[in-house]
Amino acid sequence: MSVFQAAAVQMAATPDKDANLAVAERLAREAAADGAALVVLPEVFSWRGPRREESAVAEAIPGPTTEYCGRLARELGIYLVAGSILERGGAKDKLHNTSCVFSPEGRLLTSYRKIHLFDVDLPGQVSVRESDTRAHGTDPVVVSTSLATIGLSICYDLRFPELYRRLVFSGATVVTVPAAFTAATGRAHWEVLLRTRAIENQVYVLAPNQFGRNPHGFDDYGHTMAVGPWGEVLGCAPTGETVLRVSIDLDHLAKVRGELPCLKHARLS
Amino acid sequence: MSVFQAAAVQMAATPDKDANLAVAERLAREAAADGAALVVLPEVFSWRGPRREESAVAEAIPGPTTEYCGRLARELGIYLVAGSILERGGAKDKLHNTSCVFSPEGRLLTSYRKIHLFDVDLPGQVSVRESDTRAHGTDPVVVSTSLATIGLSICYDLRFPELYRRLVFSGATVVTVPAAFTAATGRAHWEVLLRTRAIENQVYVLAPNQFGRNPHGFDDYGHTMAVGPWGEVLGCAPTGETVLRVSIDLDHLAKVRGELPCLKHARLS
Repeated sequence: MSVFQAAAVQMAATPDKDANLAVAERLAREAAADGAALVVLPEVFSWRGPRREESAVAEAIPGPTTEYCGRLARELGIYLVAGSILERGGAKDKLHNTSCVFSPEGRLLTSYRKIHLFDVDLPGQVSVRESDTRAHGTDPVVVSTSLATIGLSICYDLRFPELYRRLVFSGATVVTVPAAFTAATGRAHWEVLLRTRAIENQVYVLAPNQFGRNPHGFDDYGHTMAVGPWGEVLGCAPTGETVLRVSIDLDHLAKVRGELPCLKHARLS
Repeated sequence: MSVFQAAAVQMAATPDKDANLAVAERLAREAAADGAALVVLPEVFSWRGPRREESAVAEAIPGPTTEYCGRLARELGIYLVAGSILERGGAKDKLHNTSCVFSPEGRLLTSYRKIHLFDVDLPGQVSVRESDTRAHGTDPVVVSTSLATIGLSICYDLRFPELYRRLVFSGATVVTVPAAFTAATGRAHWEVLLRTRAIENQVYVLAPNQFGRNPHGFDDYGHTMAVGPWGEVLGCAPTGETVLRVSIDLDHLAKVRGELPCLKHARLS
């Protein structure tokens, strides 16, 4: 389909899974009612809390949360990218941070385990070691849908251009970047990195972020954003619960790729 | 050396090689007098004119223009990145667009042949087929100097993240992007791409551009720019002949790499 509507959902997850799922469902319903055929939720939309509680709330995939998401996608008749869910069972002693894609029939089409884990120490701002509780994935994932070919990524992955090259050279025309990107790094890097991933790969980028003070004690950046294949910012939601709706036009994407055919000029990838 | 001064030179080359060399020399002298230990000139700084005249003005490397540049570097006691020179003899029927690096002793340390050639057709704005007269290079080049390890690239290369990953994983802390970047694409992409190359690779980026109406009938973007390893714009020269001087602090670079060690987290490159 050459033109369709998509939505990126901005929300602030808490340690209350039922409440988070209710918020995600309410915003997904709003998006679908407004015409979105593809809805993307943020990273760890279903639960966010202390690291020590992670293993207790993690689930198998498929499991209760993916069943919930599948039912919602089917009822609304949408493709749903459930930003990420903490996945148990994939790694020996740790979890995976896993993005799941559901079809309008409610099927779990594929899942992607976050490859790059956020271990940083910005004095006085952010100190995180994601790898303490989570194991990295190994495989880039794209999924072909009736709307577009979607390439999956999560948050910190955004800093690694080689992932997005794998996605675009596997056919992606839309890339999702569900995130819980921090305010400290987001102010400096979020928009510029999102726009570059769109420009260099000539794809649409949908990046729903979390906002506000998170359970780890620092702020997330919000600024859920959608970018077109020429690098144009199609929409940005600074803060608060938001459904950011955008129009995705694959004819426009084809025009950009035709006029400036840099994907055909790559020689080292 | 942990802190040194560098300069990016903005100029507008014409089909008069002697005049261009005189401008480049005057601006390089100004930079050196102002303390720059590294001076970077733009792409095709020594000659820019009709495609049909290119083969007549191209030179071997080493050749008269590199000898000129070597003498200048020695006299001024600077590292000089001669943005690019049209090189004859490297390819069978075509030229190379080649960046050359000179030591403060006047030696030609290395040269880099532009890998990605600019073949685009933006209706009503820019129509160029660089590959009509030029052959692509094949090998990324970094050069270790007493100041820093410098990674080389030229203009359109900027769109290809995999080149810069090769440079940074070969040790680059400073990346040069001499350019004749068009105004049409520059307005949309120049700053965002330069900032991203700095952010994702945690390097200094020095990007001297040409400005004004070029001999091909369209405008170059100017906006010669320097960016730090956190993505901070250190300086920008919108238009006109300019020596853009910046301070390069490798301790700051080490701090950025220590606090947000994304180069150590790469798993696919």
